[in-house]
Amino acid sequence: MRTAKLLLHCPDRPGLITELTNFITINKGNIIYLDQHVDHAENIFFMRIEWELKDFLIPDDKIEEYFYTLYAQKYDMTFKLYFSDQKPRMAIFVSKMSHCLYDMLARYVAGEWDVEIPLIISNHPDMGPAAEKFGIPYYVFPVNRANKEEMEAKEMELLREHDISFIVLARYMQVISENMIKQYPDKIINIHHSFLPAFVGAKPYHAAFERGVKIIGATSHYVTTELDAGPIIDQDVVRVSHKDTVQDLVNKGKDLEKIVLSRAVQKHIERKILSYKNKTVIFN
Amino acid sequence: MRTAKLLLHCPDRPGLITELTNFITINKGNIIYLDQHVDHAENIFFMRIEWELKDFLIPDDKIEEYFYTLYAQKYDMTFKLYFSDQKPRMAIFVSKMSHCLYDMLARYVAGEWDVEIPLIISNHPDMGPAAEKFGIPYYVFPVNRANKEEMEAKEMELLREHDISFIVLARYMQVISENMIKQYPDKIINIHHSFLPAFVGAKPYHAAFERGVKIIGATSHYVTTELDAGPIIDQDVVRVSHKDTVQDLVNKGKDLEKIVLSRAVQKHIERKILSYKNKTVIFN
Amino acid sequence: MRTAKLLLHCPDRPGLITELTNFITINKGNIIYLDQHVDHAENIFFMRIEWELKDFLIPDDKIEEYFYTLYAQKYDMTFKLYFSDQKPRMAIFVSKMSHCLYDMLARYVAGEWDVEIPLIISNHPDMGPAAEKFGIPYYVFPVNRANKEEMEAKEMELLREHDISFIVLARYMQVISENMIKQYPDKIINIHHSFLPAFVGAKPYHAAFERGVKIIGATSHYVTTELDAGPIIDQDVVRVSHKDTVQDLVNKGKDLEKIVLSRAVQKHIERKILSYKNKTVIFN
Amino acid sequence: MRTAKLLLHCPDRPGLITELTNFITINKGNIIYLDQHVDHAENIFFMRIEWELKDFLIPDDKIEEYFYTLYAQKYDMTFKLYFSDQKPRMAIFVSKMSHCLYDMLARYVAGEWDVEIPLIISNHPDMGPAAEKFGIPYYVFPVNRANKEEMEAKEMELLREHDISFIVLARYMQVISENMIKQYPDKIINIHHSFLPAFVGAKPYHAAFERGVKIIGATSHYVTTELDAGPIIDQDVVRVSHKDTVQDLVNKGKDLEKIVLSRAVQKHIERKILSYKNKTVIFN
Repeated sequence: MRTAKLLLHCPDRPGLITELTNFITINKGNIIYLDQHVDHAENIFFMRIEWELKDFLIPDDKIEEYFYTLYAQKYDMTFKLYFSDQKPRMAIFVSKMSHCLYDMLARYVAGEWDVEIPLIISNHPDMGPAAEKFGIPYYVFPVNRANKEEMEAKEMELLREHDISFIVLARYMQVISENMIKQYPDKIINIHHSFLPAFVGAKPYHAAFERGVKIIGATSHYVTTELDAGPIIDQDVVRVSHKDTVQDLVNKGKDLEKIVLSRAVQKHIERKILSYKNKTVIFN
Repeated sequence: MRTAKLLLHCPDRPGLITELTNFITINKGNIIYLDQHVDHAENIFFMRIEWELKDFLIPDDKIEEYFYTLYAQKYDMTFKLYFSDQKPRMAIFVSKMSHCLYDMLARYVAGEWDVEIPLIISNHPDMGPAAEKFGIPYYVFPVNRANKEEMEAKEMELLREHDISFIVLARYMQVISENMIKQYPDKIINIHHSFLPAFVGAKPYHAAFERGVKIIGATSHYVTTELDAGPIIDQDVVRVSHKDTVQDLVNKGKDLEKIVLSRAVQKHIERKILSYKNKTVIFN
Repeated sequence: MRTAKLLLHCPDRPGLITELTNFITINKGNIIYLDQHVDHAENIFFMRIEWELKDFLIPDDKIEEYFYTLYAQKYDMTFKLYFSDQKPRMAIFVSKMSHCLYDMLARYVAGEWDVEIPLIISNHPDMGPAAEKFGIPYYVFPVNRANKEEMEAKEMELLREHDISFIVLARYMQVISENMIKQYPDKIINIHHSFLPAFVGAKPYHAAFERGVKIIGATSHYVTTELDAGPIIDQDVVRVSHKDTVQDLVNKGKDLEKIVLSRAVQKHIERKILSYKNKTVIFN
Repeated sequence: MRTAKLLLHCPDRPGLITELTNFITINKGNIIYLDQHVDHAENIFFMRIEWELKDFLIPDDKIEEYFYTLYAQKYDMTFKLYFSDQKPRMAIFVSKMSHCLYDMLARYVAGEWDVEIPLIISNHPDMGPAAEKFGIPYYVFPVNRANKEEMEAKEMELLREHDISFIVLARYMQVISENMIKQYPDKIINIHHSFLPAFVGAKPYHAAFERGVKIIGATSHYVTTELDAGPIIDQDVVRVSHKDTVQDLVNKGKDLEKIVLSRAVQKHIERKILSYKNKTVIFN
């Protein structure tokens, strides 16, 4: 059963839900999912709607045009249209730590995710054997301050060659440059090993230990040009105590990081995230 | 801003959302809330929709009739209609423990809940002083096995006199009889001090201690004629360890019970619970 | 069964546990509780030990002296000794919000806490009726920037008169001055309505909403002269979503605040908190 | 730094901690860990103590004998002694699901666990490729009702050959027979995909869906001869809603299962679990 998924936002006004559901129904689409949200403070209407394409009167390659002409320009809408049989293509960036990488690869080979992973990119050779176990090409770009521009240019060429639609930073310990971030807006997912906005930047577990917190967290977010400040997708926490050393926090945190990152990736793959003004709307 | 709140379920079919939102919009109601859910296994459509009544063309006292005639009979719908200015009237039943009672009374006097609490009923005099602190009439019916029918008859008379729309059992340690339950379907909320369906019945903390569980819970649910088996509204848990005695479980559980019960009461007051086949749909 | 409770810390060295447990046992005290912790990074030994006084050879009023002479001076120990029949005397400071206040008063009258609450102090008259319900004297000191020194002097006089041993700030919306804090070191417990160190200072729920976090928290801590930066006692969190308004965060947060504050107060009353270098050791 | 780890329980009596810590200290062992617990209901004393062996006067191979002679027989103690350089040897049993298996293998190759995994046993060939990726021998025993005795005999022979000290059932969908369980008391760890004791037996997610619970769980426990009724090691939960299908519960549950199982395995490897009367004491 092929479906179309439409995500949109626009200034709120009466009658929008009715008009948009009419559009689908009149054209013989069967709505199988609808979730909507109004941010009353900002007066913005958000919607995700999914419908079966079997009897839909408008051909696939015309839906975007028709929707733009009939609704989007009229109501100042921003929208994205996806088809259920378009598999997103995901690149993983990793450094030396394996826990997030293995967690995603295990889901991938088990068929949990409707995604392709054509390649893994790293600044270190260490995770090569892990990639090899799962038969995924592994490319090393030894990025440093001096060569970053050149290395990222090569990375982006590789991403284009493989038609990559989004990037997952699986504890990738390099700051991505502004140029690259701008080419992948809301398409680079990072896992930060703290409960943001607490403990931005390097060594958050050390900082959490120093502060004596009783709970630590992990945060998955889209990468923007400001460090660790992009739209938050998911967060989770685990209780710690005075008995936990920094190393204990690191170990407990690993389980959080991999779960929180994988949940964000899954939501992204399912086209259930809409980003607006540095926040996310996460549809159910 | 007065609103109407409509909760409904019916067999699922294409076009329902469109038709129902049309009904509101065409008649000049402004939809301010819509949440819907389809149980694909049972093929049931659930919806909660709320709209402003200011310009709505159909008079308040005709909405129910019109909706029944135009939609409900046609689509085999079960529905309930509420108005935002109808305050539910809540009776609290309590025995000897105060934690749930105080938690609700504190919310009540702080104005957190849009509800009236005209009376408290108990099988013991103990909580009388608590009721008195908050100026709420307190009635004692010393129910026992022999006099239960007679006592409940008096309780129900009192409930009718005060036009009570729902009942909250705040650790009320008496089983309500089938007769009374049937008069208040989906209108009696109980808190059970375990993570149901584990530890049904009496002394769940003792049973949890005996079993050596590492997490205990509390469950709020609508009361049905089968003990502790009605539709679950909310649950929550807290971690325990081998260091916790039965009394520690009791104490930790109290905090759970009051929060889980109050969350259920709030959802009920807000008309956000729809009960179907011994399960609840909880709208956001 | 009367007991003594000893909390101590000192530089770690081999044999400490043995020597300290020997001290109790040889003098015919029966150890009923022992918990210890070593901070290996700082090389500090922490211990809480409790024993029955029935057959203990050293008289109550000599234990402190003997312990100092025989162990504390020798091992550079900091220690505190409490007796189980010494009830701590607690003052509550409150402003206009009632949820934490009612939660504590409900526990107090239910006998959950082994404490005395001789008075409530406020900068507003609003909570007077709440105090009156529970029969606790309520004093209003309308603190402002100009009169703070004078008002606090009066407050402290009142605290001394009532022999207050610790203070609980139950959403008290005034910064306590350095002078007063220094007179109550590790004896003023505050609840901050965020997951510290995120969102220090005023309006944390607004800040959390702006940042688009997916989890909010509350933190109980001892008050030090640096705002919201004292030793953390307890924290807890609750999940939120894009559907939650600032007001929703405020409401969800209230349940967190009262539970997290009450847990801290309980640990303090039980003499289970040891503060060291701006962190807490919380004994089980 | 080599250490000895001693876990014991016995009837409680005054002076035990002192006497036992004396034993270590007098013989020049440096205590680096001590945790103890008294079950006052059962009057049982539990202890875990760890000390450095460098200067310890009693040779490794005599400690057990000395301890038995001097203390265990005197105080009716049950005890176990481990040395930090004895790596436990773990066998994984798996059927067709990969999530727990991959999670453990990823930790193993990352060096998170101080353990050997010499082999994986299955009743199906499906996970062979997963085992192969990580270079671990994989043996298939197609167990069924008719051949179970014979198959288990071969499995146990293999376990003996590889000197296996404990077994992890990583969603192994076969009931282990009584004979085999008795040969590995407190040495077979299972993950059950529910919050025990709710939903014992087959298809717990279906049962949870039917009951309409709002939270699902997973439970790791030692296997005893009564199904899903052995001592619980760890549990965790995740919130679900009416929107979740059975398949959603299965998917959310997988993340729980792997984390809860791995936490139990880690505690077992670290020798931090003591089992008594069908409950566990989990030392910190």
